Amino acid sequence: MRSSLQTIIGKYRLEEPVFVARPTMPPFDRFTERVRPLWESRWLTNQGCLHGELEKRLEEYLGVENLSLFCNGTIALLVALQSLRIHNGEVITTPFTFAATPHVLHWNGVTPVFSDIDPQTLNLDPGRIEQHINSNTRAILAVHVYGRPCDVDALQSIADRHGLAVIYDAAHAFGVRYKGKSVLTYGDASVLSFHATKLYTTMEGGALVASSARHKERVDFLKNFGIADEEMVIGPGINGKLNEMQAAFGLLQLETVDIEIENRGEISALYRERLASIPGISLFAQPPETLPNNAYFPVLVDEGKFGLCRDGLHAVLRECNIITRKYFHPLCSHYPCYSALPSSRPENLPVAEDAAARVLCMPIYGTLQLETVDRICAVIEAIHKESGKSQSL
Amino acid sequence: MRSSLQTIIGKYRLEEPVFVARPTMPPFDRFTERVRPLWESRWLTNQGCLHGELEKRLEEYLGVENLSLFCNGTIALLVALQSLRIHNGEVITTPFTFAATPHVLHWNGVTPVFSDIDPQTLNLDPGRIEQHINSNTRAILAVHVYGRPCDVDALQSIADRHGLAVIYDAAHAFGVRYKGKSVLTYGDASVLSFHATKLYTTMEGGALVASSARHKERVDFLKNFGIADEEMVIGPGINGKLNEMQAAFGLLQLETVDIEIENRGEISALYRERLASIPGISLFAQPPETLPNNAYFPVLVDEGKFGLCRDGLHAVLRECNIITRKYFHPLCSHYPCYSALPSSRPENLPVAEDAAARVLCMPIYGTLQLETVDRICAVIEAIHKESGKSQSL
Repeated sequence: MRSSLQTIIGKYRLEEPVFVARPTMPPFDRFTERVRPLWESRWLTNQGCLHGELEKRLEEYLGVENLSLFCNGTIALLVALQSLRIHNGEVITTPFTFAATPHVLHWNGVTPVFSDIDPQTLNLDPGRIEQHINSNTRAILAVHVYGRPCDVDALQSIADRHGLAVIYDAAHAFGVRYKGKSVLTYGDASVLSFHATKLYTTMEGGALVASSARHKERVDFLKNFGIADEEMVIGPGINGKLNEMQAAFGLLQLETVDIEIENRGEISALYRERLASIPGISLFAQPPETLPNNAYFPVLVDEGKFGLCRDGLHAVLRECNIITRKYFHPLCSHYPCYSALPSSRPENLPVAEDAAARVLCMPIYGTLQLETVDRICAVIEAIHKESGKSQSL
Repeated sequence: MRSSLQTIIGKYRLEEPVFVARPTMPPFDRFTERVRPLWESRWLTNQGCLHGELEKRLEEYLGVENLSLFCNGTIALLVALQSLRIHNGEVITTPFTFAATPHVLHWNGVTPVFSDIDPQTLNLDPGRIEQHINSNTRAILAVHVYGRPCDVDALQSIADRHGLAVIYDAAHAFGVRYKGKSVLTYGDASVLSFHATKLYTTMEGGALVASSARHKERVDFLKNFGIADEEMVIGPGINGKLNEMQAAFGLLQLETVDIEIENRGEISALYRERLASIPGISLFAQPPETLPNNAYFPVLVDEGKFGLCRDGLHAVLRECNIITRKYFHPLCSHYPCYSALPSSRPENLPVAEDAAARVLCMPIYGTLQLETVDRICAVIEAIHKESGKSQSL
């Protein structure tokens, strides 16, 4: 089999690497025009004009209120918990997420309790949550994985029954609408990431959507060291400020984000069309009642049907200069710092374990050419044919 | 008295406000030239080329090794403690510092123990530290206030005697040399701030100088979520990454920082010359064996001799459009989140209490005109004359 895969690599290898994500840049001249006034004002951070303008524009675009910008999504999530006074006890969360999610619990003095996910959405399975609730439970920290909405109504109902807060790690969910409104309006706080790998980016950056004007006020204090005024520090805040240069970049990104989402939609559609018929490659159904953002294109690999395991496919694609990501593998419950927790036992997280072993995210970004997507699909098809052939020998 | 001060305000009020600090901007064209390649590479963060170049250039300029860039100095300080595994117990620190210093102890699960400062330097008084050491003490977190070196030898000797780590908050100490080498080379870790109010800036930003290559490696993992590689997360890190745009800005700042320090030296000299003879305004002696950076120009106000208290002087100057800062007031030991600690009792911190009540930092930045400095000094002199007059009535 190895030599026939070498033939595929020889035949299909791309000249330039195709990354899993790449930012779409605003016009360079527009950027320099936007930042030039900073050379006059010399006001580079600390709630500057562009920062204020971007908060307002993002609120309008996303259809939310009480949005606060941050230097990155992790610090926003850290402050989200602090702003809700969650600084001890346990928080129920998903192991199928990026490292930042459990890490912010650690930094707030909270023990993560990992609960299994739903096989259709890969989001927290509401049916598995209540078994983890006890008198130490403070909140549910859920993730809209790949921007696909959690079962927000079921989560809220559980939270209400037990008096818990609900915080959404919405790092993937920029622009997603669910049941007619922004998915960011559910729960007690939602946090976005504007990292360079995201569909909307400020290079590094993020935002917290608070539940009220009073909540935002507290968030804004906490992201600036807890400083309320020159004479008063209200609590152990942190530095979460976004500077003016990044705010300028973000204002320009906002002008083209609709096109970005549209382009990703076309790419998704082509992947769907081309990959649906390949045995052992499972796609995810479009989530109901959702306006999606097409931020990611994950698939699940079934080794038995495809002929090669996920890690094998990932490796061969990499040799073809196609960089996919095992997103999310390893599970957070496997990290050495969390693996000793009772909730990390693999037998309690069968769906998450299975997904982490089989998931692969395909390259997707606004400027990715459809012919490249076509080529990626052709490579996967060829790998299946070769692998299946050798397997049947 | 009030009406005579009004006369001074009428006579001396500046048309434009003079801030306590203002960044010196690099040439705009040089900046756009530096960032243009990002529009090709689209590599905007995560240890990019400019990030790597800036780390190397800063190491050369500062005369240090093992420097890691950060999104801000607070996150750098937070990671400094984490990298040294200080995540419980007590750390001895100064109350005469910015909020970030005790806050990073909070975030690492450590109780701050405030120890009094030396009246000459306003840095931690080594003679007061040992009374606070017990079996829970983990480290000394000292601050080179205004960039003036702590008594590093005395601090290290105490730390060695008790097996403690020494961490320096060197937010003010960019470029300072002490006893022939960078002040950043003392202790187990030092942290710089590159905030827009600092003499060297990346808008927001900071750096951690680690004690060895192995230590830096750990720091670099921790500032990127603890991610060691695609398959391994070594601990609950955080996002502390500096993006490429800010690194570009930092590279240009480095080209002119010597001029910035020189200009501030001239401003300091003029303040010294003009303020030395005003009764009730005490200046700080130049620290011995030190190559200073002239980052700040603090004075202490003696109400009895000057005729007006510090708060009064601050208020009148503000009405004259001269923005000074009570830096550091309030003491961290006065913040509601720390004021209940036993070490926060004012009677244990007499020197810090006195300094916080009397200190005032004058405007200083490279592009501040000497005639403006002259004007500021004239205002202070006039205020003294009026206040002293009314006092003697």
